[in-house]
Amino acid sequence: MSTTTFSTTPYKGTRDFYPQELQKRSYIFDCWRKTLIRCGFVEYDTSIIENADLYIAKSGEELGSKQLYNFHDKGDRHIALRPEMTPTLARIVANKMGELKMPLRWFSIPNCFRYERPQKGRLREFWQLNADIIGASAGAVEVEILYVIGQLFLEFGATKQQFKIMFNHRGVLDRWLSEVAQISDVEAKALVYAVLDDWYKVSLDQNVALLSAKLSELQIQQITDLVSKQGTSWSEYLTIAKTFPELDLILNTISTFSEHVEYDFNPTIIRGLAYYTGLVFEAFDKNPQNPRAMFGGGRYDDLLSLFGKSAPAIGVGVGDVTWENFLDAWDLWPDFSQISSQPVGILLSSTENLPKLYSEVIPKLQAEGKTYDINYEFDRSENKRWETLKKRGCGEIIKM
Amino acid sequence: MSTTTFSTTPYKGTRDFYPQELQKRSYIFDCWRKTLIRCGFVEYDTSIIENADLYIAKSGEELGSKQLYNFHDKGDRHIALRPEMTPTLARIVANKMGELKMPLRWFSIPNCFRYERPQKGRLREFWQLNADIIGASAGAVEVEILYVIGQLFLEFGATKQQFKIMFNHRGVLDRWLSEVAQISDVEAKALVYAVLDDWYKVSLDQNVALLSAKLSELQIQQITDLVSKQGTSWSEYLTIAKTFPELDLILNTISTFSEHVEYDFNPTIIRGLAYYTGLVFEAFDKNPQNPRAMFGGGRYDDLLSLFGKSAPAIGVGVGDVTWENFLDAWDLWPDFSQISSQPVGILLSSTENLPKLYSEVIPKLQAEGKTYDINYEFDRSENKRWETLKKRGCGEIIKM
Repeated sequence: MSTTTFSTTPYKGTRDFYPQELQKRSYIFDCWRKTLIRCGFVEYDTSIIENADLYIAKSGEELGSKQLYNFHDKGDRHIALRPEMTPTLARIVANKMGELKMPLRWFSIPNCFRYERPQKGRLREFWQLNADIIGASAGAVEVEILYVIGQLFLEFGATKQQFKIMFNHRGVLDRWLSEVAQISDVEAKALVYAVLDDWYKVSLDQNVALLSAKLSELQIQQITDLVSKQGTSWSEYLTIAKTFPELDLILNTISTFSEHVEYDFNPTIIRGLAYYTGLVFEAFDKNPQNPRAMFGGGRYDDLLSLFGKSAPAIGVGVGDVTWENFLDAWDLWPDFSQISSQPVGILLSSTENLPKLYSEVIPKLQAEGKTYDINYEFDRSENKRWETLKKRGCGEIIKM
Repeated sequence: MSTTTFSTTPYKGTRDFYPQELQKRSYIFDCWRKTLIRCGFVEYDTSIIENADLYIAKSGEELGSKQLYNFHDKGDRHIALRPEMTPTLARIVANKMGELKMPLRWFSIPNCFRYERPQKGRLREFWQLNADIIGASAGAVEVEILYVIGQLFLEFGATKQQFKIMFNHRGVLDRWLSEVAQISDVEAKALVYAVLDDWYKVSLDQNVALLSAKLSELQIQQITDLVSKQGTSWSEYLTIAKTFPELDLILNTISTFSEHVEYDFNPTIIRGLAYYTGLVFEAFDKNPQNPRAMFGGGRYDDLLSLFGKSAPAIGVGVGDVTWENFLDAWDLWPDFSQISSQPVGILLSSTENLPKLYSEVIPKLQAEGKTYDINYEFDRSENKRWETLKKRGCGEIIKM
């Protein structure tokens, strides 16, 4: 063995989960799991290694590989640590297309890697809940996914004052731009999407200035009316929305489960990714110190095209770092000392009692569902050893 | 998006865990977790990415990198997917040496990667339970770890007829070779270790032939007597064993918890790895079709030396693939259809009932702790839809 000594810090942008930190992460994952299982979802998992070319094909050479952890294995295969789960989900669904009973309600909590500069809320390694419904076309399933996202928050005890779920539809916006605002030029539409996407990140004046590069004053007025849900701009938007059956269902149903969750039909919800094809949605943290989009999702019916197959799909991805920040900010953590049982301390007076420990004491504790912590420091005083066991979190202490 | 279509098979030597397969893996992990938590262990986790040079320093340039998934990140850091958890465990313990309250009873179930030819029981990606006690010198803690390993098996309903736990001590064997068999030459000792390690893989004649390269006939006789636990060879071995306090404790205590677990003090248990410094042990599958060592562990007091620190440690690593093969061979799986609750099928007659579904039906099911599966195929006959829900595993079906 070499005599070099190595640094003990974890690789940049990754985390060591000591038992206390893992307890928090496990709490999040357990609540996510509980919610999704309750809503009829089943869990899957895969290897973290995928074909690197998948991501490059999906996002283009430059964008696809810039943040990618890709390398060649010792057999010269071009592989990558997945930066997201969706292409993998598409792969395993395409792989058993004939056997799987659609629709699938599937979830997974994979870790993903992206090479970027670590910052608050964004690390190189993160875990991401992926929940998807595959094989059901636009319709009642849109209502279902919005319901499920609300349930995720409620499981942690979050309230209507702390978050909301915003949704929009790419098709509605597109038709409204063409038919109401009379914007059909592709570049002008792209500009409107980009400006709406960042609407609340800049001032109204800045938004107007940006739009004026391609739009008339009237068109700009229509858009600002739409964003503030005013006048005919908004009423026409609603009229178009009702011609999309899934939106009509959402607008008719959502009040039945919005007692504890605020849902907001909002034209500024765009979602960057090109692949969304219908409903898009975003969960929003209302924290006045740090109001922000937490995560999003939508319908993406081109999911399986990388594998030459086709199936409609709708889904959501939720990052663990963002979620943890949300729980921190609103103090939604449970009291872990209350929910995990305290071990029983065992203060052994001598090794001669080991047979009794294993034949009587431990079997009894195990039968009672109790956990334990054995102290072997025979050379220390009983008082000191008692104190040590207490400091280690033991409740009851058995001297033997 | 490119028009290339990609292969849907997973990367060589890795597995896709569809919900049915994940249910099996989760069953294993849950039972491992339950056992270890009951025995006072707490869970930790880390990133799969580690400093590649750690493994090369530990095992030498060639051995260290031959099976290693190592590469340079976009910032030219030499990183690797961990091939095992021990160096990482050492790193995170060394990193908080002052704060952590020793002894630590820690476990983790990381995935690990090794570049090798996939074969039965051995894949490129595997999960490995690591359970370690750090900060307690040889003594009663040796008894504790042997107890815990037995508990792991019992949690799955395995019986004494299906497995045994064999143990040995490097110090006892070394002293016996020097003092009883009068073998002190380093090369001769190394030969004996190698032959004992593979003792049951070849015939007695072959073992004798191998040993005769360095040993006298008397010495070979002493070794074959030792292996078959006969005569003074074995009684001297026991006498030496009793001078090691931890072995004396094991031999005095083990009968108290061996009603359901067979423990076997066995001089052929060597364990290849150079770093074991005292007790070594191995779990053995008694399956007559495929008797084999399943996994092992031992005391390795040099654990932290890579990081310039020092702490005594004893631990075990258990692979998921081996464990799954064990459960398969002995048919120890539970009936999953019995342990997971059947969803309630919801046969919705029209989207007009969505408000009722979300305001009444689902809240009631959730309050009862039931899961559900909604069918939206409004264009199919009620009978067909009923059949579909049954085929998807629904018990009760609600028509609405």
